[in-house]
Amino acid sequence: MFCTVLHTLQSPQNVGMIVRSHVAFGGDRIVMLGNEQPWKFGKATQAFSRRLEKLCEFVHLPSDDQFFEWCEQERLTVVALEISSPPTYLGEFVFPERVALVVGRESTGLPADFLARCTHVVTVPQFGAVGSLNVAVASSLAMFEMVRGKRPTVEIVGDSYKTSNAGLP
Amino acid sequence: MFCTVLHTLQSPQNVGMIVRSHVAFGGDRIVMLGNEQPWKFGKATQAFSRRLEKLCEFVHLPSDDQFFEWCEQERLTVVALEISSPPTYLGEFVFPERVALVVGRESTGLPADFLARCTHVVTVPQFGAVGSLNVAVASSLAMFEMVRGKRPTVEIVGDSYKTSNAGLP
Repeated sequence: MFCTVLHTLQSPQNVGMIVRSHVAFGGDRIVMLGNEQPWKFGKATQAFSRRLEKLCEFVHLPSDDQFFEWCEQERLTVVALEISSPPTYLGEFVFPERVALVVGRESTGLPADFLARCTHVVTVPQFGAVGSLNVAVASSLAMFEMVRGKRPTVEIVGDSYKTSNAGLP
Repeated sequence: MFCTVLHTLQSPQNVGMIVRSHVAFGGDRIVMLGNEQPWKFGKATQAFSRRLEKLCEFVHLPSDDQFFEWCEQERLTVVALEISSPPTYLGEFVFPERVALVVGRESTGLPADFLARCTHVVTVPQFGAVGSLNVAVASSLAMFEMVRGKRPTVEIVGDSYKTSNAGLP
């Protein structure tokens, strides 16, 4: 079981894609952490989320302290997805049973003082000349890693795919 | 070794993210298939690609016939990423040595006559109430699957991440 935690994300497209992956991989709640106002699901977000936010439960937590308290109450192990040295690589890391998967803001990543409080920091291994992956891609890789090897509960039939895709990214 | 093949993609953001993941996972060439004009890397694409298209070699192939001929010449096995029934699931499928990984247009997916000519069709398993993943997310999952278990050639240091991220999605 996992919750996805978005630490002060800025891009509506990224939030939208993360919502979509979270729903596709059977995530539990989505936590919006550190945004004073609840996230607004406007047009740009919805084009990428396909309005799946209606299927999610959202939790808004304004401060890091409130977040770590909430994780303790919910018995969630905090796993941050961030570049770290020495790295613990995604694909080698064994995820705990109940995970709060945290990704950070596009422009800055997760702050050092936040990372210091996380139980695990996991890094996506990279093989080319690039500093980082898109945050929605990176978080989706981690979500897939958590469900990898499990049998899917949903079988999607060809035609429903094409219908549900119509006109959206 | 893999090439990434974009079959008439429409969204600059998606193309940008795919370029970024392709570079991060050490992909070979990117094939733009079925767009009559070469893809223009405008502002929206570059915000998501981080201008990494400068590090890629691109191949433009206007027709499916030219694409399958090119794969034969290059000794590439064509693996399409698409919903199919019965599904071969990503995470269970063993990728061949030299892969042309094909993803289809956001609104329609890959045409049935194109899929019929592919050696393999692989499906991302899903666990929630959603018809499909974003195409950039799905292709990045497949790329990661191809490098999974390999040791990364690049180790990224914390600071360079934050610098390279500044102001971009």
